[in-house]
Amino acid sequence: MNKLLGAIGLAGGILGLNFLTTVQAADPKPEEVVAYRQSVYTVIGWNFKPIGAMVKGEMPFDAAAVARHAQYVEMMSKAAPEGFRKGSGPDVVKKTEAKPEIWTKWSEFETKMNDFQQESTKLAEVAKTGDEKAIKAQFGKTAETCKACHKEFRTD
Amino acid sequence: MNKLLGAIGLAGGILGLNFLTTVQAADPKPEEVVAYRQSVYTVIGWNFKPIGAMVKGEMPFDAAAVARHAQYVEMMSKAAPEGFRKGSGPDVVKKTEAKPEIWTKWSEFETKMNDFQQESTKLAEVAKTGDEKAIKAQFGKTAETCKACHKEFRTD
Repeated sequence: MNKLLGAIGLAGGILGLNFLTTVQAADPKPEEVVAYRQSVYTVIGWNFKPIGAMVKGEMPFDAAAVARHAQYVEMMSKAAPEGFRKGSGPDVVKKTEAKPEIWTKWSEFETKMNDFQQESTKLAEVAKTGDEKAIKAQFGKTAETCKACHKEFRTD
Repeated sequence: MNKLLGAIGLAGGILGLNFLTTVQAADPKPEEVVAYRQSVYTVIGWNFKPIGAMVKGEMPFDAAAVARHAQYVEMMSKAAPEGFRKGSGPDVVKKTEAKPEIWTKWSEFETKMNDFQQESTKLAEVAKTGDEKAIKAQFGKTAETCKACHKEFRTD
């Protein structure tokens, strides 16, 4: 339980750092930034997908697994902003689904990113209770924040 | 500080689950498993690289950044095992640097994975102290576990 609470605390701490810290490996190349952000979302998907499968009854509900996966989704949501530094858009890197609007409408993008981080944090909290009904509801709210951001800022 | 301690605790908890839990999205395809593990290592590299640059004096030492990056390296080290499930080797997926020996010498691979997880956990702990000299030493020990595993189980 402390571990779970610790994760929430950690994620919260990282959330604060993400938008403030600019320290990164001596100037990563745009391609490296894109590879990083795509990797973060791949890890998010890997962990988000089974939660969805469980709340949809497509696979046996495993409270411990849901809690673990939700923690990773939350932590990766806090790691995502680092992957959207300026100069890593489609004008520089071809293989990216990120739209230029991310950087031209940064505050709006930042708001949607915050929504995702906040809902995924709630999902990780609800996941601790093991309340399948509540988890399903929060999973839905979190998924909505994914869709909202992808709809406006990701090329389909 | 509590957040950092929490991260250590969380990672420890996940470590225990990784080798025990098999629950995952309804049968991910081999390509999805490979994409997941490669993503985990990309996130590890993204965070490990700046620590190395800082301890080598290639970029300004930032204790807070080191602590944050070290936490991600540790947490991702606990997420890595999930990406090596059977049936995701080079005999099934072409685009992978994972050698067949990972699965034919699983216990040996598991030992090297544990070494990496343990050293990265120590790195995250040492990072909390902000002791640059100690961090540099532990960074070296952690890097050695990377090399040891890559040398035997990864195609160069």
